[in-house]
Amino acid sequence: LVNLYRNLVEIFNGSKNATLLRNAPEPVKTSLALCHRLLTERGEFSGRFIAAEILRLYRSLDASGRDVFFCGLLNGFAPDPKSILQAGKAYQETSSPENLALLVQAVEAPRRELFQRLNVAANGTRTLVGMRGELLRCLPGHPTLAAVEADLSHLFTSWFNRGFLVLQRIDWRTSASILEKIIQYEAVHQIQSWQDLRRRLEADRRCYAFFHPALPDEPIIFVEAALTRGMSSSVQPLLDPDAPASDPLSADCAMFYSITNCQDGLRGVPFGSFLLKRVVEDLGMDLPRLRRFATLSPIPGFREWLDGPAAEASQIVGHSKLKSLIQTLQQLEWHKDANQCAQVRPLLVSLAAYFLLHVKHGKEPSDPVARFHLGNGARLQRINWLGDTSAAGLQRSAGLMVNYVYRLADLEQNHESYTRYSRIAASRGIQKQAHIALV
Amino acid sequence: LVNLYRNLVEIFNGSKNATLLRNAPEPVKTSLALCHRLLTERGEFSGRFIAAEILRLYRSLDASGRDVFFCGLLNGFAPDPKSILQAGKAYQETSSPENLALLVQAVEAPRRELFQRLNVAANGTRTLVGMRGELLRCLPGHPTLAAVEADLSHLFTSWFNRGFLVLQRIDWRTSASILEKIIQYEAVHQIQSWQDLRRRLEADRRCYAFFHPALPDEPIIFVEAALTRGMSSSVQPLLDPDAPASDPLSADCAMFYSITNCQDGLRGVPFGSFLLKRVVEDLGMDLPRLRRFATLSPIPGFREWLDGPAAEASQIVGHSKLKSLIQTLQQLEWHKDANQCAQVRPLLVSLAAYFLLHVKHGKEPSDPVARFHLGNGARLQRINWLGDTSAAGLQRSAGLMVNYVYRLADLEQNHESYTRYSRIAASRGIQKQAHIALV
Amino acid sequence: LVNLYRNLVEIFNGSKNATLLRNAPEPVKTSLALCHRLLTERGEFSGRFIAAEILRLYRSLDASGRDVFFCGLLNGFAPDPKSILQAGKAYQETSSPENLALLVQAVEAPRRELFQRLNVAANGTRTLVGMRGELLRCLPGHPTLAAVEADLSHLFTSWFNRGFLVLQRIDWRTSASILEKIIQYEAVHQIQSWQDLRRRLEADRRCYAFFHPALPDEPIIFVEAALTRGMSSSVQPLLDPDAPASDPLSADCAMFYSITNCQDGLRGVPFGSFLLKRVVEDLGMDLPRLRRFATLSPIPGFREWLDGPAAEASQIVGHSKLKSLIQTLQQLEWHKDANQCAQVRPLLVSLAAYFLLHVKHGKEPSDPVARFHLGNGARLQRINWLGDTSAAGLQRSAGLMVNYVYRLADLEQNHESYTRYSRIAASRGIQKQAHIALV
Amino acid sequence: LVNLYRNLVEIFNGSKNATLLRNAPEPVKTSLALCHRLLTERGEFSGRFIAAEILRLYRSLDASGRDVFFCGLLNGFAPDPKSILQAGKAYQETSSPENLALLVQAVEAPRRELFQRLNVAANGTRTLVGMRGELLRCLPGHPTLAAVEADLSHLFTSWFNRGFLVLQRIDWRTSASILEKIIQYEAVHQIQSWQDLRRRLEADRRCYAFFHPALPDEPIIFVEAALTRGMSSSVQPLLDPDAPASDPLSADCAMFYSITNCQDGLRGVPFGSFLLKRVVEDLGMDLPRLRRFATLSPIPGFREWLDGPAAEASQIVGHSKLKSLIQTLQQLEWHKDANQCAQVRPLLVSLAAYFLLHVKHGKEPSDPVARFHLGNGARLQRINWLGDTSAAGLQRSAGLMVNYVYRLADLEQNHESYTRYSRIAASRGIQKQAHIALV
Repeated sequence: LVNLYRNLVEIFNGSKNATLLRNAPEPVKTSLALCHRLLTERGEFSGRFIAAEILRLYRSLDASGRDVFFCGLLNGFAPDPKSILQAGKAYQETSSPENLALLVQAVEAPRRELFQRLNVAANGTRTLVGMRGELLRCLPGHPTLAAVEADLSHLFTSWFNRGFLVLQRIDWRTSASILEKIIQYEAVHQIQSWQDLRRRLEADRRCYAFFHPALPDEPIIFVEAALTRGMSSSVQPLLDPDAPASDPLSADCAMFYSITNCQDGLRGVPFGSFLLKRVVEDLGMDLPRLRRFATLSPIPGFREWLDGPAAEASQIVGHSKLKSLIQTLQQLEWHKDANQCAQVRPLLVSLAAYFLLHVKHGKEPSDPVARFHLGNGARLQRINWLGDTSAAGLQRSAGLMVNYVYRLADLEQNHESYTRYSRIAASRGIQKQAHIALV
Repeated sequence: LVNLYRNLVEIFNGSKNATLLRNAPEPVKTSLALCHRLLTERGEFSGRFIAAEILRLYRSLDASGRDVFFCGLLNGFAPDPKSILQAGKAYQETSSPENLALLVQAVEAPRRELFQRLNVAANGTRTLVGMRGELLRCLPGHPTLAAVEADLSHLFTSWFNRGFLVLQRIDWRTSASILEKIIQYEAVHQIQSWQDLRRRLEADRRCYAFFHPALPDEPIIFVEAALTRGMSSSVQPLLDPDAPASDPLSADCAMFYSITNCQDGLRGVPFGSFLLKRVVEDLGMDLPRLRRFATLSPIPGFREWLDGPAAEASQIVGHSKLKSLIQTLQQLEWHKDANQCAQVRPLLVSLAAYFLLHVKHGKEPSDPVARFHLGNGARLQRINWLGDTSAAGLQRSAGLMVNYVYRLADLEQNHESYTRYSRIAASRGIQKQAHIALV
Repeated sequence: LVNLYRNLVEIFNGSKNATLLRNAPEPVKTSLALCHRLLTERGEFSGRFIAAEILRLYRSLDASGRDVFFCGLLNGFAPDPKSILQAGKAYQETSSPENLALLVQAVEAPRRELFQRLNVAANGTRTLVGMRGELLRCLPGHPTLAAVEADLSHLFTSWFNRGFLVLQRIDWRTSASILEKIIQYEAVHQIQSWQDLRRRLEADRRCYAFFHPALPDEPIIFVEAALTRGMSSSVQPLLDPDAPASDPLSADCAMFYSITNCQDGLRGVPFGSFLLKRVVEDLGMDLPRLRRFATLSPIPGFREWLDGPAAEASQIVGHSKLKSLIQTLQQLEWHKDANQCAQVRPLLVSLAAYFLLHVKHGKEPSDPVARFHLGNGARLQRINWLGDTSAAGLQRSAGLMVNYVYRLADLEQNHESYTRYSRIAASRGIQKQAHIALV
Repeated sequence: LVNLYRNLVEIFNGSKNATLLRNAPEPVKTSLALCHRLLTERGEFSGRFIAAEILRLYRSLDASGRDVFFCGLLNGFAPDPKSILQAGKAYQETSSPENLALLVQAVEAPRRELFQRLNVAANGTRTLVGMRGELLRCLPGHPTLAAVEADLSHLFTSWFNRGFLVLQRIDWRTSASILEKIIQYEAVHQIQSWQDLRRRLEADRRCYAFFHPALPDEPIIFVEAALTRGMSSSVQPLLDPDAPASDPLSADCAMFYSITNCQDGLRGVPFGSFLLKRVVEDLGMDLPRLRRFATLSPIPGFREWLDGPAAEASQIVGHSKLKSLIQTLQQLEWHKDANQCAQVRPLLVSLAAYFLLHVKHGKEPSDPVARFHLGNGARLQRINWLGDTSAAGLQRSAGLMVNYVYRLADLEQNHESYTRYSRIAASRGIQKQAHIALV
């Protein structure tokens, strides 16, 4: 192993991280040397043990140790520039399939094969997903690690192909170890206790998650829905742990009020819209009386826009009503004063409509939640006054919530209009409200 | 769709297959146009339906239609040569990570992403595995399709990573639909009937298979073993459907007498040695009295070598015993004549030992079965006289069979000696026998 | 144990079997002595081992040994007559609940508790069910064993309460060990091979079985159905292993063509009608296009009645047509002669209708199949000419088959009319046919 | 139904409950009438619906309604006294097996068959178990209902035969709905929260439960164990939710610290010792380093005995030390005063030893926990000073806890000595301590 590492060090020599790697702590050195061995090993007998040992060492490293380990992966398992240049030249001379095949081979980092082999260890997939999570956290400080991260990302896109994901209903019969993770991961509307969770899994609620066969205990993404009569306009009643459960058979709406990506290490691998689509289909078959599938969503960037660009504009234009509105929103518990509410409501709702329809980030809405649902082909249906009066709801969305409606028959066309022509499917009501704001 | 296909056709224009594709039958045209659409689709809503439709059309095609379809994949979903050249040039000028990333991207065929998206359809994985099987059959006639095949192969190496495979014991409680496939796939020693299969699954037999979660009804590879007292020297008793089952607890050997790859479409994705290793571990834990794990294997290239190179050499050197041996082997049922057997036995066994140890293909033995087991770290233990007197056994291996022994403690070192220094782990007996042949 | 057996022998002394038991073979003596011990054991620690040993010994006995063992159970584990008389007298004097409770206790044979304790052994339930099967076979020769049999029967009625039975669909994914039993048990239309079975489990066929949790590998009873367009009139097409499978979604009828009780030891514990009812419900939900649920059933006692009572009557009355019909039926392959068929058909069908409607066994039809289905509330719908031309079909049912229709809406009322007033629900067609026969 | 009930009422006429039943609330009348119908129904088609309706009505009744319902079962579904007397007389005249069979039949209450038929409804078993729970609560007030309770008890002894129970490990992967019940049922050492439960299911803890196939979500009985190094002398460390989990492989003892019967309705059906035995076996196989299986048990009747009979005796004999000890124990938090502890410890421990060995209830120890474990064949090993300093522990057991040791090799003999000769297996230490108390 010492020799192996010495060889590695030579590879590192040219690189910026050479010193770092030469002085690496022992477990980093050992694990990198083992990586080399794993890669040169033809037989698969010892492979599993080597892989397991590497992952064990990796898990034992602290943040700075992992940093050095990542640098080792970056410099020691990169493709060989000479081979690339040579294959590139050959292809330039003759663009034959054979030369292309050689070029493809030359540019592929040995890291990819390394990660493939590490996956053979018990809990391999789990550790590798965690590794990418770590890498993504390191990237801002070490942008060069992007190449390592990209290789894992490339692999995960293949491994976590949606064709391999399994949809599972989460309910009170689900294993406690999975439920515990639901509690821990839920980010949109935090779960306060097991009691709170239990309410969210009763007869008039639904929760579905995607799982991958290699991570049977780890939800990848999950969505929570409430079965209601009529489209919900406010999230607090849905979250009330003491609310009595209603009969799911009497419901005509499924309200999606939370969707959560669980694995940092799978960021950027897109599952969300696929999950929603599957759940809409499943619910529609289970409960044929459901006529509407809609979300109850925040407008997370609204307040920031109000306090920033909108406030500035108001100063320039001298829009006094907007100015006072912004001041009102800065008061504590403004929403409990009925008078104030009556005053600000029309303008605030109009501004939200305007924000969603006309404030852009490139060609798409500035609001990420809107981008997600509109991109899925959903329709912007309604803005709900005081739909979320939690601290977070007031601070980010000025207490407003939006219903996006998923109508299976329209999804495709909405999606197409949106992606091709940046057209937003919105109800007439919202269009009007947006119009008023402009006046 | 017509437009889409017209666009595709333009891409094809330069290619050799342009005419072929312009005159493609309707379903081929539709399916290729849909492939294009699937690839440009950002949303995932319609994706599943498009993918399903493409695969349905594909399955409906006859051999010649599939040929055209593959040509479409080859020409219409290849990387863009201009982009490659451009990215190649940029990298030549500055070998930065960014330029490398661009080059990597440029050389990757859009086919890969296409296959990823096709996998989302129901039965996607199964159809894609079948597709590669088909491609491999086409390759001899259409060698240019190798690029398409290579992309599927690349994907399968990732999807069928051994970390995702699940070991399952196959026994009489297994589903009939899986057992039917075992009957159908078993290639080494054909299974004659359900009765025959049943015997192979009794208490003194073991059968293990690897499965992939996306193909729950399809064994990927399986191995059959007999639990015996002493190392078996002959396969016919093991295959006798009327032999009484013995007590597995009294066994001290596990004899692997058959290992079968089930999926043509996964050829070249190596599972075999990994399976054997796992089974040796599992059996060792289940039945701690087992002391020996060995195979009962054919020498499939032996007769061919005897009749070819060895026969030629015998003519040159004038080795009359060898000449008459070769003539004996050409007689029908020579093995039933005890006299003849006595005469040819010493020389034949020596020659087999010589063949296994010294007749090479590169640095490795010419015999593929030997390469497989020696590469795994097994040891060449014994040559068994009339170990397989079936027609196939006589015709290919001159009735001989070999025991390769898997000793966990030695596997690693044997494997290392073999791969590094091409040293073959063999018993002294075999070494002596090989020596005699040389004299 | 010797002492225990000596005590037992004293109990036997009075009995007819005393000599038999005194000279019992050793394993019978041991097992009976252990039965005594098991019953007096308060603790449950050793109970499981004692029970297992008793059952092991029992299984090792040959028929005559089991006979003696049963005699031992009869005499050694009977209620004590003195206690019964005493408790009876007390109850006669004062019919108090307390005295009743004592009498109930006095009359219960200790055998019942013994069987309860034997069930704790591994495979206990299976062995006890087998034991009753054996007892039922012995009963004709040893009618006194009825008391032992009755105790097992009482227990099984409780253990195999229909509330504990689990309905499972049997298809090609079912375990081979269960399918093998289906092949072995099917009595109505024998299954010739795995190929034959496979056809019976294809998309246009259904097979359902009841299982008990303590016998997970043993079907208790199963029914086979074919999904057809129109009500089937002939069983041979349904049994043809080479018939192509039709689309189950296009079917409008479910034809039950076989129902089989699997366990001799559960004879008399009624499951059949419950199974049919459950299957009708399940199929109706799975395939809402099914409009008719009917059987294709034999008339097993018809030929016997024709050759016996009917033939006699024909002699008396001088019914020459009937006489010649009976002679025709005795010819080999009479059904292949179209002329003959045309001649006998009207009378034969009329006689069958008459037989089903008017020939009684007590107040119910003489035909046991008719009793079963009519008792379930089914309706006698149609008699099918040459519905079963197999050897058995010709010999027992004169080649005729009957459709009994299960209409959920009518079952209850039909059942009530049948059980209360012995009224048979029959189509007008059959009623007419029966009428003709009377003329 | 009205008629049916009228008939029933006539049956009731003679009985004490006649008026009660004549004025029964409507749902009671309906349900009792339906019970009659269910019993006279031969077919099984409508049976399931009638049974479901009866159980639905029963569940809707309040306590007084259920009382009347039970009276209806008592009077309306009892065996017929006339038939009993007649059969009794016949048997007195001729004690033939036939006459015995008739008597057996005559004394069996139709209730038993009724309960069998009710079980066919969905959730039948669950409701019937609940019904017996209710009955047991009613018995003190309505002792005549004992006959109804006895019939259910008789049935449950058969249905819940230990041969049908399935042992399942309970851990953090178990369904939340089952874990919730574990929290709710645990009676010995209450579970405070999900956090508390989680600790009890970590690597160094074990929890096993028996389940019945008809009640898959309902544990019948469960036991909790801690894996420790050395035999635990105090329960608080085992219950500490913040204690770090130790390595189960380093443990040499399994300490059973809680065993809980979950179903009131199954009281008297004995499972406990069978569960312990199975768990000892299972643990022994899983963790072969375990050398000792012992309990950490309370002495629930000790303080009561001290304050009652012992205190009285001390007054008579003038045992001043005992008197002051009893006073000490009445002080709050006496156990926190080291001086006081030192003073009372020797006498208190001696008295406990004396209590366990010599204070009897019949021939067995007065302490029910001692009866249970000694009856199982365990050995009284050690008395632990301040083994349980919880309020309940101090109040009932004076803070003491006992280790009973389960040694598989001795269980049978201990059990035999105990049941036959009332000999208690106890360590020499405890025997000595008990001796001191006597002096």
